[in-house]
Amino acid sequence: MVVIMKAKSSEEDIEHVAEKIRKMGLKPHISRGIERTVIGAIGDESLLNIEQLEAIRAVDKVIPVMKPYKLVSREFRPENTIIQIGNVSVGGDKVAVIAGPCSVESREQLMATAREVKKAGATLLRGGAFKPRTSPYSFQGLGEEGLKLLAEARDATGLPIVTEVMEPGQVALVARYADVLQIGARNMQNYPLLKAVGKIHKPVLLKRGLSATLQELLMSAEYIMSEGNHHVILCERGIRTFCEFSRNTLDLNIVPAAKKETHLPIFCDPSHGTGKYDLVCPMAKAAVACGADGLIIEVHNNPEEASSDGDQSLTPKNFAKLMHDLEPVAKAVGRRL
Amino acid sequence: MVVIMKAKSSEEDIEHVAEKIRKMGLKPHISRGIERTVIGAIGDESLLNIEQLEAIRAVDKVIPVMKPYKLVSREFRPENTIIQIGNVSVGGDKVAVIAGPCSVESREQLMATAREVKKAGATLLRGGAFKPRTSPYSFQGLGEEGLKLLAEARDATGLPIVTEVMEPGQVALVARYADVLQIGARNMQNYPLLKAVGKIHKPVLLKRGLSATLQELLMSAEYIMSEGNHHVILCERGIRTFCEFSRNTLDLNIVPAAKKETHLPIFCDPSHGTGKYDLVCPMAKAAVACGADGLIIEVHNNPEEASSDGDQSLTPKNFAKLMHDLEPVAKAVGRRL
Amino acid sequence: MVVIMKAKSSEEDIEHVAEKIRKMGLKPHISRGIERTVIGAIGDESLLNIEQLEAIRAVDKVIPVMKPYKLVSREFRPENTIIQIGNVSVGGDKVAVIAGPCSVESREQLMATAREVKKAGATLLRGGAFKPRTSPYSFQGLGEEGLKLLAEARDATGLPIVTEVMEPGQVALVARYADVLQIGARNMQNYPLLKAVGKIHKPVLLKRGLSATLQELLMSAEYIMSEGNHHVILCERGIRTFCEFSRNTLDLNIVPAAKKETHLPIFCDPSHGTGKYDLVCPMAKAAVACGADGLIIEVHNNPEEASSDGDQSLTPKNFAKLMHDLEPVAKAVGRRL
Amino acid sequence: MVVIMKAKSSEEDIEHVAEKIRKMGLKPHISRGIERTVIGAIGDESLLNIEQLEAIRAVDKVIPVMKPYKLVSREFRPENTIIQIGNVSVGGDKVAVIAGPCSVESREQLMATAREVKKAGATLLRGGAFKPRTSPYSFQGLGEEGLKLLAEARDATGLPIVTEVMEPGQVALVARYADVLQIGARNMQNYPLLKAVGKIHKPVLLKRGLSATLQELLMSAEYIMSEGNHHVILCERGIRTFCEFSRNTLDLNIVPAAKKETHLPIFCDPSHGTGKYDLVCPMAKAAVACGADGLIIEVHNNPEEASSDGDQSLTPKNFAKLMHDLEPVAKAVGRRL
Repeated sequence: MVVIMKAKSSEEDIEHVAEKIRKMGLKPHISRGIERTVIGAIGDESLLNIEQLEAIRAVDKVIPVMKPYKLVSREFRPENTIIQIGNVSVGGDKVAVIAGPCSVESREQLMATAREVKKAGATLLRGGAFKPRTSPYSFQGLGEEGLKLLAEARDATGLPIVTEVMEPGQVALVARYADVLQIGARNMQNYPLLKAVGKIHKPVLLKRGLSATLQELLMSAEYIMSEGNHHVILCERGIRTFCEFSRNTLDLNIVPAAKKETHLPIFCDPSHGTGKYDLVCPMAKAAVACGADGLIIEVHNNPEEASSDGDQSLTPKNFAKLMHDLEPVAKAVGRRL
Repeated sequence: MVVIMKAKSSEEDIEHVAEKIRKMGLKPHISRGIERTVIGAIGDESLLNIEQLEAIRAVDKVIPVMKPYKLVSREFRPENTIIQIGNVSVGGDKVAVIAGPCSVESREQLMATAREVKKAGATLLRGGAFKPRTSPYSFQGLGEEGLKLLAEARDATGLPIVTEVMEPGQVALVARYADVLQIGARNMQNYPLLKAVGKIHKPVLLKRGLSATLQELLMSAEYIMSEGNHHVILCERGIRTFCEFSRNTLDLNIVPAAKKETHLPIFCDPSHGTGKYDLVCPMAKAAVACGADGLIIEVHNNPEEASSDGDQSLTPKNFAKLMHDLEPVAKAVGRRL
Repeated sequence: MVVIMKAKSSEEDIEHVAEKIRKMGLKPHISRGIERTVIGAIGDESLLNIEQLEAIRAVDKVIPVMKPYKLVSREFRPENTIIQIGNVSVGGDKVAVIAGPCSVESREQLMATAREVKKAGATLLRGGAFKPRTSPYSFQGLGEEGLKLLAEARDATGLPIVTEVMEPGQVALVARYADVLQIGARNMQNYPLLKAVGKIHKPVLLKRGLSATLQELLMSAEYIMSEGNHHVILCERGIRTFCEFSRNTLDLNIVPAAKKETHLPIFCDPSHGTGKYDLVCPMAKAAVACGADGLIIEVHNNPEEASSDGDQSLTPKNFAKLMHDLEPVAKAVGRRL
Repeated sequence: MVVIMKAKSSEEDIEHVAEKIRKMGLKPHISRGIERTVIGAIGDESLLNIEQLEAIRAVDKVIPVMKPYKLVSREFRPENTIIQIGNVSVGGDKVAVIAGPCSVESREQLMATAREVKKAGATLLRGGAFKPRTSPYSFQGLGEEGLKLLAEARDATGLPIVTEVMEPGQVALVARYADVLQIGARNMQNYPLLKAVGKIHKPVLLKRGLSATLQELLMSAEYIMSEGNHHVILCERGIRTFCEFSRNTLDLNIVPAAKKETHLPIFCDPSHGTGKYDLVCPMAKAAVACGADGLIIEVHNNPEEASSDGDQSLTPKNFAKLMHDLEPVAKAVGRRL
């Protein structure tokens, strides 16, 4: 860690910071520049309380040298984490494709969509039973009934199922049915929920918050892993910007950036990342081209009747075409579908 | 609601939308322009499923005419909501000032700070017992022990207490001690938590999320109110932008904008909204000048020893000066402290 | 255009708006809803002054139905614009690659880099002679001397040259040497400059501003085209967001979105879009995968000695590898390098 | 300056950086931590080429310790700069108020508005003669004719005039008429224009770009000052964010932040900063409360007939009320109107 003192700090100020560093168990290393003094702290940075150093009024800024995360980092585990979900491997050569409706609405809707996405080559089935909706007056999902339908669809198609969990008290119930538990973007920093899914033994798909940094995303993964569950899949789903032509801005820069920092797999969700069905296919290809380990695609057998997100849902026919078009892109970057 | 069709939509497309609107129970009203057709829907807009209309491929966009919120709106309740907390009235002439440490750390720290802020004129005491921290390795708060200390500080000073609740399962516990329950920025769209605090009878301080729109903030308040708890205080605490000179960007535009839309009181938190102790005072004055009903100010008896947020905490001396300087500003806009 | 009146507008207010629309030469079409009145304007929307309608205090909002741009739009020209630059075609099957150093620094540097990028398969050469630098104390470019060196490099390699022009008074000079004139991101809304390059007969590469919307980018292209120069290439180069892991956020959503709206070619600049040399290759592939018509890549024969942007510059060796890896991606989406 | 090396850098890497620092004329100071090595550079930081150090692949990041600006900084000039414009002093006790229409449209419009704002207490008159408009088809201003009308209005009212200049070739002409030259937000980084206004002897009002940082704003002021013109007034006019309830987000945090960094006066423009006439008054008060040295307010004698920005323009009556309401706020913070 490096402390940059304000210009014109006194010897007393400098010694005060040095003493504080010593008390925290590290060794201060003082560089007196012409205009500013810089103090390095040599030792185990995890012992430092950075906020306390920042609070010293003579300190201009504190620059951490160590990463605040451990278990998620490439240093901790240099090789890629590969997660096994039924007979699907995530994080290896194969690009996984999670497909299905935004919400589970009925047996007919789910079964029809599930069969279609299976036929087109999807590797996992998604569908929301508990839905985080902006309005209390919108459809909130079928709840456990939805989970049961998902399990039925898994039995019928063999596709493992991915579904969202919204609160700590729901984790046990959702884990009883789901193969992968999804933490939605709005809950990326719902720490009690992260701790709760950290205690189970099923993979977690952790979506990036609308205005989360990479470091915050990794810290949220660290929360899960620090409770014992190391099966975390990261997911970029679009950030909020001023852009008017898409619902969100799919930030693909994060894919190669995450690959440098962490061993965890990272997926992309071009459905939420664009909000427009006709941008989904090009952005799905882009995601695979820059190294995404998987995709999540909203597919509805009849988007106009979808109870949510119809505007960004592909029809089964569009989805089949996407799968067909994705294959050569995956191959071009040394992967396969 | 107004549906704008894509250019070159066919008569069939137009009729399809019209029929859909009829099925939802409204009357379509078609305006054929030179290049585009626009279809209005006359009737009770709450019957419409906007997402289903957007999902129609021939539709360019759908523009809601009605607000999606009801209970929070000025139309529903034209006069300002005034909330009584002990002997403090919030939302009226008097500007409320909530002050105290970021975290409750010890009896000594809390009592010392509580007495100082009381003396300087604060109207409520804040302090975190359950702390949402970015890192699982940071201090997570004293938990119930912290709540007990807060209750003790209330007994000693007479100041009602405000503290954060992080999950539905904690609501009953926190409500046993607190006078006002705070929902933090990261939980603004934690819907199970919003529903849970909607079922109790204590005021809720709802902080705006880091990238939440005004409409989303109001919809979150609507969640709480729709469960029966009408005592909601909104709070602006800074949004995330590219700005490098402050931790967040305190968005004061939202204060007068919210006043137009809703009858609920709105507070500002210049401590989180700037992240720098020396920007807190000017921004506190600005907040009062543009109409904020209250402030939340982090105060610590020894910021350098604070376990969190020391860099943005005022000393008791700074806080006393702030209260002194605020008074004429409040008066200048027809309010008082 | 659709005018949404405020709730409780009077008959007088409605008639006032209707009269205003009539005076502008269109026909008002009034839909009285239960809570709001909506007024459509039938006729040639370009006659309307939207700002004047918005300024009417009884108007809640005005929603334009027509696009504000003409010459750039797909409606105006349904087929893709193909621009010929020497023997290079831009906007067709072939993905163009502009490569070269951020700044022209010396004959040796430019020639060495130019030969390398030519050998690796670049189709155009870039290099800055007039440099927009944040600091007045930074290297501002070699000026005309740099343009001469670029012309020399073109003679030596056969690559057409792309270079930035910063002010109207420089256009004639730069056009004497350059094959393509670049308008930098900071000048996207420098209207006198746009008009000036609109009067010449050389292609213009128009970079998107740091916080420009798609509509604003297209309006800036419209400025150039409305002066007579229809050879405009759009370029996404990253927007400014809160993201900390890359210098900018490369917004690839804009590529397929622009393809829907306009017939103009669109390029991507992953060097500025990421700011990190090791993110350039994955993002270049992503750009091609989602439909970009070309790329701009900063290459320097010795990044550590570059007078600007070394951190995001590829070495010639990295660039050769990029060209090699891009080829199958281009093929996978039906293009070629 | 502090260089943080990547983890596992070799001795050779470290020596390479140290040698580079020596060659630039400074002394390296190496701190070997447990996981990382940090190298300080002792000496005159202005000799360093930071980009070249960043380009070294073994370097993780480079943290400048010195500010990149000189003439604008508080260190260079500790006392506030006070700028004399006719008999108006800017930057002292008195809060200046620039008022007038967005565009000069006609003699009648300008004279009527000028007389009203003078009567209400404005200290300077604004009006655009050269207008930067998003669309090439919008009204572009009256040009020199507008400048003549402004001069006439000055003669009639005694108010000094502020008007925008859009390109270097216009500076001499505009300076012939105007008392203060305005650089618009879109031109904040139009460096040839900054240099051109740096060479004249009239005050410059420099508006912050839509997504400019404080440092970038100060660097643009430095461009002007480095050419010899030290009479620069900074102006916050709203940044672009995701917020939907105002046209821009007026970032008042920058006012006290700028006051720490620079001796230059800073104004606020709540008209552009909100885009809504009914948010202008509260935000004008907030700006004064947090320390703004002046305001710019759009006033039009008939907003519904304004050729631009009518929606954010005050009527003369609203403006008179604003001036009346501002007075006690200014007094509350030790200023006067």
